[in-house]
Order: sequence, then structure tokens, then C-alpha cells
Amino acid sequence: MTTASPSPAAPDPQRGAAVKAADRAHVFHSWSAQELIDPLAVAGAEGSWFWDYDGNRYLDFASQLVNTNIGHQHPKVVAAIQEQAGRLATLAPGFAVDVRSEAARLIAELTPGDLDKVFFTNGGAEAVENAVRMARLHTGRHKVLSAYRSYHGATAAAINLTGDPRRWPSDTGAAGVVHFWGPCAYRSAFHAADEAQECERALAHLADVIAFEGPQTIAAIVLETVVGTAGVLIPPAGYLAGVRELCDRYGIVFVLDEVMAGFGRTGRWFAADHWGVVPDLLTFAKGVNSGYVPLGGVAISEKIAATFATRAYPGGLTYSGHPLACAAAVATITAMREERIVEHAAEIGERVLGPGLREIAERHPCVGEVRGLGVFWALDLVKDKETREPLVPYNAAGADNAPMADFAAACKRRGLWPFVNMNRTHVVPPCTITEAEAKEGLAVLDEALSAADAHCR
Amino acid sequence: MTTASPSPAAPDPQRGAAVKAADRAHVFHSWSAQELIDPLAVAGAEGSWFWDYDGNRYLDFASQLVNTNIGHQHPKVVAAIQEQAGRLATLAPGFAVDVRSEAARLIAELTPGDLDKVFFTNGGAEAVENAVRMARLHTGRHKVLSAYRSYHGATAAAINLTGDPRRWPSDTGAAGVVHFWGPCAYRSAFHAADEAQECERALAHLADVIAFEGPQTIAAIVLETVVGTAGVLIPPAGYLAGVRELCDRYGIVFVLDEVMAGFGRTGRWFAADHWGVVPDLLTFAKGVNSGYVPLGGVAISEKIAATFATRAYPGGLTYSGHPLACAAAVATITAMREERIVEHAAEIGERVLGPGLREIAERHPCVGEVRGLGVFWALDLVKDKETREPLVPYNAAGADNAPMADFAAACKRRGLWPFVNMNRTHVVPPCTITEAEAKEGLAVLDEALSAADAHCR
Repeated sequence: MTTASPSPAAPDPQRGAAVKAADRAHVFHSWSAQELIDPLAVAGAEGSWFWDYDGNRYLDFASQLVNTNIGHQHPKVVAAIQEQAGRLATLAPGFAVDVRSEAARLIAELTPGDLDKVFFTNGGAEAVENAVRMARLHTGRHKVLSAYRSYHGATAAAINLTGDPRRWPSDTGAAGVVHFWGPCAYRSAFHAADEAQECERALAHLADVIAFEGPQTIAAIVLETVVGTAGVLIPPAGYLAGVRELCDRYGIVFVLDEVMAGFGRTGRWFAADHWGVVPDLLTFAKGVNSGYVPLGGVAISEKIAATFATRAYPGGLTYSGHPLACAAAVATITAMREERIVEHAAEIGERVLGPGLREIAERHPCVGEVRGLGVFWALDLVKDKETREPLVPYNAAGADNAPMADFAAACKRRGLWPFVNMNRTHVVPPCTITEAEAKEGLAVLDEALSAADAHCR
Repeated sequence: MTTASPSPAAPDPQRGAAVKAADRAHVFHSWSAQELIDPLAVAGAEGSWFWDYDGNRYLDFASQLVNTNIGHQHPKVVAAIQEQAGRLATLAPGFAVDVRSEAARLIAELTPGDLDKVFFTNGGAEAVENAVRMARLHTGRHKVLSAYRSYHGATAAAINLTGDPRRWPSDTGAAGVVHFWGPCAYRSAFHAADEAQECERALAHLADVIAFEGPQTIAAIVLETVVGTAGVLIPPAGYLAGVRELCDRYGIVFVLDEVMAGFGRTGRWFAADHWGVVPDLLTFAKGVNSGYVPLGGVAISEKIAATFATRAYPGGLTYSGHPLACAAAVATITAMREERIVEHAAEIGERVLGPGLREIAERHPCVGEVRGLGVFWALDLVKDKETREPLVPYNAAGADNAPMADFAAACKRRGLWPFVNMNRTHVVPPCTITEAEAKEGLAVLDEALSAADAHCR
């Protein structure tokens, strides 16, 4: 499906040093203290791999930022971008244009239920911003509920909905955002004994929050279908259906954020497909075109689209439905269908990653839990399997975070690029990863986790 | 500089109807009541022109949404996108990559003063969001001041800063945003007799607002260098320097929004260059790569970059510094330099658009004022030149807005695509527009304004 082991160009350390020097002089990096980082200069990429200027190759177990679902440099997507660039690179959102229409049609075909209209944005944060705006105007209500364990983006409305600590410095006390606890059986907020009880108690908790906030004040509940960066949390059977029912009961708009979970990541086109739940709004980005060109959007139900049939929708952006981005989406979706990439992701998860990670967990005292679906997995690392005390404290930095930093460094030394967040490593390779590549990556993880074991009680 | 009159492919109305039908079925359009719009299906574009499927060509006096500064399908930019797509389409923001470094270096070279670090976003709204976050964290203060006559984007923080009516439906009463009146001699908030008095009074007003809001509570003043969509308002001499001085006096961060004004629109690389003013943060998008690939960003002063030297900057997005977008920026800036496109925009403004529009104004009772620079002009349309009563009321819709709707339709019938906002038409063609094209467009404007004259008192 991908070349197992592409050959990078000849090393060129001098060029790498120049690229790095210009970066350090002029590029301001996200989520970083500018003088404390040492960005790797990357020379090229293909399939599940990328490489630097010094002759080092990395197997990408992070899919960059969990976006290259189709792998790097897929020839069909590259060709579509090149063709569209030569034909019509950009066009204002007010016009009808073939690739925009076709991307919307394909997405509407894939999304569940009656989510048949698509509003395009540049990425996930803007998708969430617009979903919230639609929900508020549709309901005439103001409050929005979201989960503590969540990430929804970094523009003002999106970061205030976010639960993880990246919200703190930008938390402007946005009126009307209320955080609640979602289900997470392994670290239950409800002292539940098992998944079924966790589900029941999480729904009771949400019902209580709704009751005490005032159902008639709540515009939307925004949830990641499978919580991504905050831990790859798979909702227990019945949870999403229960939230759907609460939303229906109180006329609350149900927004599922599938920015990370959508387009094959869980082994289905959308994670919601696993549970047969249809939200009122579904946000997407990343996998829709693997991030080859910035693109995100909101898939909109009939009911909510109708609200804006004769009343203007008051939101927009210069690049809504960008032709180049839409052409990349059309090619990505088409290639994923033709090459059965979503099915492949499901199979790799079931046959290779799931069993492989569970085996690893047995061998390592530091692995508390393995959870996941498709190519969307987490290892929850602990000091003690009994107490489940995290390997590093919540939001640890510096010396406190050394066990995780050492683990990441051990992976990189062995040619594996890991995704690390707090006390977890996520195994989130491209959907196109081959069995051999997946096994190669698991072998590196296995070795690197031995270093983490040393920090166990 | 551009082909004066590119030849569209043969008309294909059937294809056009199919594109339109798919659009109406699945594309949710920005700023629109979905069932009240009738989007033109566009088949192609080149230079200053685009065309539909029915054999109609339009001279683009709007540069789409004032973003195609280099015109449509510039061969050097198209080639750069195609080459980069084949080499490395996407890469996470954490890495150093050649085109990202080079785009940042070129932008830092062009921006005024010590704005030497660049944080990349997908567009203008996110640029403003991040500028505000930087200012709040740099100062430890919360309030942000912006002008009533302004547009800054449609994500939560950006739309709350925006002054125009598009803010109203999304105004969530964001704590800490305060709107003030900027200078606008033609429609003075200060009953000023001339530009010099307008400047003096606007600065006194701003000083009063700062005093009554509490200088030590104000993180930033955010201003469009030349106000764009809200009217192409050129600041009077001394105004921006006066704001700079107020900011310096009180330790307030001065943010200039050059999303629309930057990259050649005013006949300089940045509008700030006309007045020699250096802000602390400068936001850009649109013209940086003419929107061929979504890109925006913030150019950051040394002082503010230093705040995040050893303290993490808490903001980011998956596509920050997107390689494809950065490659388009490098090619755009390079082509604009090689072909002296910014100088050309200045010359077209001085020699063709300015004189031509002033002549038109003399002939038409409905033209109250002509103002502009480079390829950035507005005609302020009025019922009466003496009273300056706008041709249509503020934020008019339906029948109230008929005079402007009729004017726009008259332009389109004659093959000119105008930019229309409230009682104004803006003349904002590509920077690459030829003298012949500009004159052709002015002739159409001249005719179309006759219809508007009928609505004068």
C-alpha cells in the first residue's frame, strides 16, 4: 500500500543546518518556548516515513499531528493538487465551482444521516467555531457544554471549549461554556466498577449538569466522538446514544467533533459509524485531505440548514471551500475508496496494532491500559498498575516530565517518531501503514518502554 | 503584465448547470441565506479575469475577496505549488522545513522595523486571534480596543473585535472588547472641519477612551492600517504615529491588521510603510500568496517574541507554516519583486485609478467621495453630495438596498465584477491589472453609476 522503506535523497547536513538556522531566526513555533526548542529539519517524506538531512529516517507513528491518514505524498492526491493548481488555484466562496461542489457531495455521501450540507473552513478550530455559532443561532440559546477531557482548537470559542491545560492561558472566562466529565472507565470520575456502570453514571452526570445549568439555556453539547489528544477515549456502548437522547429531549444541538477521529482514523469513515449515532452537526478537518492543503468544515443536518434557508448565516472566511483544498479532498476520498484504505486501517488495528500493543502491555509494568480502534490507539503509562498513578503528573513539565521525555527520545533514537501527550503515547500511524511497518514500530515501542519501566514503583 | 483578455474555453452551459446543481444541493455558503442566493458557476480564471460556463467573462474589480493581488493563475506561483506538492505537501509545525523558513525570512525582510519572527496561521481571523493572545499574555492585561469601522475576521475573538454589523449575531458580549471611533473625515464622528482636525480629535477621543477604560487594563489596540471592507479609510497624516505614541505611553501593544492592506494593495508592501509606523504585531493573509493556498500570520516584534523565549506560547494549529502555502508565498513575493508588481500597483493608482475615479465623481451626483491608494479605492455613494446622506441606509437589506443591488447588477451585465459593501463600491482589482483593463473597468463603472444617480435627491 505504501513503499515499506522509501529511500531518502543523499544526506546533506550543511543544507539541514541552513534550514534550521533560518527557522530559528524567523519562524515562531506553536505551543513552544521559542528558545527551548530544537526543531528537527525535515528533508522529505513518503508513505509512513520522513527523513532529515543527516541520513536519519523516522517511521511516523504520529501521522504528523494525526492528519496524514493517507500517508505522505500519495501520488493520486499530489497529482490532483498539481492539476487543480494549473486549472484554478483559488476562487471566492460566493461562486459555484466544480471541485467544491464535488467535495461537498462526497462528504455528504459519507457522513451519517441527513448531514447533507457542508460549510468549509480552513481547519478544525474554525469548524468548531462555526458549529457553535450555528447551534447558538438555531436554538436562540447561549450555553455550550463540552468535556474536560477534550481538545477542540485554539481560536477563542474553540479554546474555551477545550478541556486540556492548553485552555488555561487563553481562558478569558467566556460566558456560557460549561465543562462536564465524559466517560473514561480507566480513570473514572464516577468511581464506576466497569464500562456499563461508567456509561450509566456519565449519562446521569450529564443529565444533572443540564438540569442545574437550565436545559432551556443550552445551545449545544460538543463532544469528540472518540476523544483524541486527551487520551483516545472510546465511548462505552450506549453513551453517545444517551447523549443524543438528552439532546433530543431538551432541544439541544448535538455536535460531534470528528476533526481527529474522522476519515478513517478509527477504521470507519467516521467514528460515529461505530455506534450508529447521528449528530446535528459534525466537524471535520485533518483526514479529509490528510492536510495536504488546509481544509476543515462542518457537515450540517437538514434541520439546522433550514434555519439558514431564508435568514443569512452570519459567518465566513475568504478561503471557504478553497478549490485547491477541495481538489485534494476529492482525490483523497476517491483514493481511500479505491484502495480500501479505511478497511485496511480497521484490519491493521484488529490484527496487528491491538494484539501487538496488548502483548507489549503484558511485558511492561509501565503500561496501565491499552485502548483504541483502527489506527487510533493509546498506551496509558503508569507508575503502578494497581493504583493507576500516572507515570508523570497531569500537565508535568521539566524534570517532572523526564520519564516521558526519555521515552520519546528513546523512540526517536531508534527511528520511530512517537505521539506523546502527558502520561500517554498514542499509536496513530497513517491508515496506509503496512503490517511490516506496524510491527517494526511496535518493536521499537517495546524497547523504548523498558526505559519507562524503570520509573515504576 | 497579465494577458489583457484571456480566452476562456468553449462555453458548456450543461456542465455549468451540473456544477450549480451540486453546489445548491451540498455547499453551505458563507454570509448568506442559503435559498436566497444564486451563485455564479465559474469555469476558469486568468490574470484580472474569470469566466462562467455560458461564455461570459468578468473583469475582476474585487480581486475575489480582495486577495488575488498577483492576479489569477500566475504561472510562477502555479509552478511553485506544483513543484512543492510533488516534493512535500504537508509537515507538522514542530519541524524546520526549507520553504517555511524561507517564507518567514522573506516576510521578516519586508515587514517594517523589528518584526522579525513570523507565526503562521491559515488566514486572517486566526492571525488576529493569535495577535490578541500574544498581546494579552505579553502585557498581563485583558482589554482590547478596536474601531467601529473595521473587520477583523469571524472566529470568536476576531468577530468581537470587528465593528461592522457582521459582529451582531455572534456578539457574545466578550468581556474586554471596547470599540472606539477612528478617523473618517468624510463621515466624521467628531464634527471636524478637515483632515488635520479629524486626526487631532480622533486621537483625543482615543486618549479619552484609554483614560476612562483604564490604561493599565488595556492589552492592545487593534487597527486596520487602512480600514478595508468598512470603507477604504486612509488614516490622516499623524494618526498612526499618534496611536503609536499612546501605546508607548501606556505599555499597550499596537497591532496593525494588514490582512487586506498588506502585500501591495496600497502600492507599498505594507500600508504602514506610507506613514513609517512600526506596530508591535502585524497580521497578514490574502496578498501574502494571493490566497492560492490558505495562509495568514502574525509578524512579531523582538520585544514580544522575547516574552515567549523561555515561556511557552500557548497557541497553535495543525497547519501552522504549511509547506504548500509557504511555497506559494515564496513564489508570490519573489514574482512581485521580479516583476515590480507593488510599484505597478502604486503607478496604476496614481496615474489611472485615482484620476479616473475623480473624473467619474465629477460626472455623477451619486458619488460623494473618492478615496484610496494603489489598487485600494472606494466610491462613497450618496443621495445628496451636500448632506452626504448615504445612498442606502447603514446595513440595508431587501428593497432598502435596491439602489446598490441594481448598481452591482448593472456592472455584472457589462462584464465587470464589482466589490459592493453598504453604500460603497470598492475598486480593488489585482495589483497586476493593466492600464487598458483598468480603463475598461472604469468605463463600465461610469455607465453603471448612471443607474445609481437616479436614486439621488
